Amino acid sequence: MFDIIAFDADDTLWQNESLYSATQERLAHLLAPYLDGVSETCFRDVPAWLYETETRNIPYFGYGIKSFTLSMIETAITLTEGRITSADIQRIITFAKDMIDTPTHLLDGVADVVAQLAQTHTLMLITKGDLLDQQRKLDRSGLAQYFAHIEIVAEKTEQTYRTILSHYKVDAARFLMVGNSLKSDVLPVVAIGGQAVYVPHVMTWEHERVDPADTQHARYFELTHISELPGLVERLVQEQGA
Amino acid sequence: MFDIIAFDADDTLWQNESLYSATQERLAHLLAPYLDGVSETCFRDVPAWLYETETRNIPYFGYGIKSFTLSMIETAITLTEGRITSADIQRIITFAKDMIDTPTHLLDGVADVVAQLAQTHTLMLITKGDLLDQQRKLDRSGLAQYFAHIEIVAEKTEQTYRTILSHYKVDAARFLMVGNSLKSDVLPVVAIGGQAVYVPHVMTWEHERVDPADTQHARYFELTHISELPGLVERLVQEQGA
Repeated sequence: MFDIIAFDADDTLWQNESLYSATQERLAHLLAPYLDGVSETCFRDVPAWLYETETRNIPYFGYGIKSFTLSMIETAITLTEGRITSADIQRIITFAKDMIDTPTHLLDGVADVVAQLAQTHTLMLITKGDLLDQQRKLDRSGLAQYFAHIEIVAEKTEQTYRTILSHYKVDAARFLMVGNSLKSDVLPVVAIGGQAVYVPHVMTWEHERVDPADTQHARYFELTHISELPGLVERLVQEQGA
Repeated sequence: MFDIIAFDADDTLWQNESLYSATQERLAHLLAPYLDGVSETCFRDVPAWLYETETRNIPYFGYGIKSFTLSMIETAITLTEGRITSADIQRIITFAKDMIDTPTHLLDGVADVVAQLAQTHTLMLITKGDLLDQQRKLDRSGLAQYFAHIEIVAEKTEQTYRTILSHYKVDAARFLMVGNSLKSDVLPVVAIGGQAVYVPHVMTWEHERVDPADTQHARYFELTHISELPGLVERLVQEQGA
């Protein structure tokens, strides 16, 4: 029934947002001494300022660790009113290298689900972010062998999915996308006639959140855990065959 | 004769290295007051330090403007022994945004050559660097319509080309790659049995240079100007047909 089953990567296959969140905490600790030592203020303000800077910088820098790092540096300069030392800016760049060096942690159940579905379907990875960083995470994940196709894209819009489906000559109705972002993995796929499975992750970046009103007419599947995916796929294939 | 003719992008289709070089000069001007005001020293040392930092950072950050910017910041901190102000670090981030805002300047003759070859061949773009930045340059170039396929890759190695050819089911012997880097566009393609055209550019980044000994046994075509490409392709097709 499905010519391609595609997976999002970050926070669908492996942990990602937790790494950004932990680094944001490191930044808050680093900046606390500059901000009257009031760490309470700091842990409230740093995430808010950082998010605003990131959002403003996405059109320039896109997604990924390098973009996040440039936004951390800008946030640090702004919040300290320029008092941050260059040694501390160097520390922020070291945070980035630490993020890059962090091993890829697969989410619970992912290894089995991917290996199982690869036996019966052509699997694809569709992820946005930094080319080098995403490839590195895939290489480290041990999952690369299961994916027939890898697409690393700048944004996941309806047009992005249309281009991919046209490229692989796949009918949208025979395409299933699995991911943790309603905004990037589910709604654009449903909008072009594809099928989508939403597997929420406990941490979702604010930028990926959608207005509940935008989802109420969209038809998609929602699972509480990715381990339920093979069962869902089997059911859909049987229903179609019946 | 050729199933696909592929082009490198930076300094093959449009100016790129000149933008990095001009930004490096802006960095040298910015740092001059910190370095005993001896601008002579500065214009000699800044490029050398920056190149060393970039080379060390490639495994972490890869290619492109964001990577270059993080390396500029690290170089500035090191060369000023930490004395650089955060206001000047913010200026370096502004250099990056200026680079991103710079219009794409096609090289002389490129628009005609690409439009002409697109009439008879399937054209592909194969470029390394930052996903968002390369897509933006392509969109601005006015050339996107001529390329049937776009591949933005992290590195251009023999394996990269093998993966692309396998993906598009193209025999290496029927693949022609055109570019300004012997290291990235010519030698790996020739090594896997493809054909390659080297079109040198007046500015080539040190990282892309190769030892002349590595090229002496490689068989490739060299053109002084890209406008000679349609003539070469026509000759090759005729020779094959004869």
